[in-house]
Amino acid sequence: MFISLEGIDGSGKSTQARRLADTLRARGHAVTLTREPGGSEGAEAIRRLLVEGEPDRWSAETELLLFNAARRDHLERLIDPALARGDWVVTDRFADSTRVYQATRGGSRDTVDALHHLMIGREPDLTVLIDMDPREALSRGLARASGEDRFEDLGLAFQERLRAGFLSLAQEFPDRIRTVDGAADAGTVAARIEALL
Amino acid sequence: MFISLEGIDGSGKSTQARRLADTLRARGHAVTLTREPGGSEGAEAIRRLLVEGEPDRWSAETELLLFNAARRDHLERLIDPALARGDWVVTDRFADSTRVYQATRGGSRDTVDALHHLMIGREPDLTVLIDMDPREALSRGLARASGEDRFEDLGLAFQERLRAGFLSLAQEFPDRIRTVDGAADAGTVAARIEALL
Repeated sequence: MFISLEGIDGSGKSTQARRLADTLRARGHAVTLTREPGGSEGAEAIRRLLVEGEPDRWSAETELLLFNAARRDHLERLIDPALARGDWVVTDRFADSTRVYQATRGGSRDTVDALHHLMIGREPDLTVLIDMDPREALSRGLARASGEDRFEDLGLAFQERLRAGFLSLAQEFPDRIRTVDGAADAGTVAARIEALL
Repeated sequence: MFISLEGIDGSGKSTQARRLADTLRARGHAVTLTREPGGSEGAEAIRRLLVEGEPDRWSAETELLLFNAARRDHLERLIDPALARGDWVVTDRFADSTRVYQATRGGSRDTVDALHHLMIGREPDLTVLIDMDPREALSRGLARASGEDRFEDLGLAFQERLRAGFLSLAQEFPDRIRTVDGAADAGTVAARIEALL
């Protein structure tokens, strides 16, 4: 099984990805826990180009190409080999993040889809969308002070558009994307995700 | 006018691009001289990912995405603004290099063309192909010891396939690509290129 977690910045995806991996391991599964952008050595190098610097460092189109380059490397070097040896793969973000972020930056969804079809052509078996009020999520995101704050810098209105984008995507792909309410303590959200499986 | 110079490693493209820029400036034109991969701040950062490291650092597909990301940034941030203010643009490599290198690495030309059409969609007005025996060109390339030798490391047989690829491309686009014999001193080759204009 290939599972992605999605949601706006600060929604608790990383925490929940770790907890989900722990839960699966406790059930006896081998698990590869990873994240995007990044996850493989090459993709992490591309990640540094994407998350550092000013918000307008890249145009929406250049950024889209970089995200797809990182994803292709991640898929080839980490995800596919892990699935081939029988691991469950849990990733903090995958292609849905690109669909939502690019559209919110004014990029064309048709271009995003055409590029995904041409160079990636894969979806997770299950995507968990952690939905949360962006005011609360943004304050968590800024509190991290990770230095990787290019997206958080884009502000609250941007995060509100992201949330709407993710919810719209969940309606578009109801069989693959399941929405979980993230407005609770981490243990409660983890139990909601476990219930989905 | 937007002019690209193409050819295998060590064929003298960089030298000839500089000489061509000087010639055009002597005729009173404003000239932007640039190169790929790179040419703009973002594209130069992507260039470092492409030219450093082991030959198998990236798959053909990931590399293709990175080249297109660099090219998109180069076009948006440097080439198009220069053309818009009336400069002539002379670039050491453009999309033909990608067509030839990717095919030679086993990548699909259909994928290269589809990606170019989707994300770049532009060609130079004139492309000068500097043709040269790869044995001579390879020795020049290695002699540079630039640290950016990932492609040169791929060896003589690879350079011979590149040469054949460039010559085949010149037959495919006879109106745009003009071939110049590069087996002469730099002044003679420069005079041959000037004669094309």
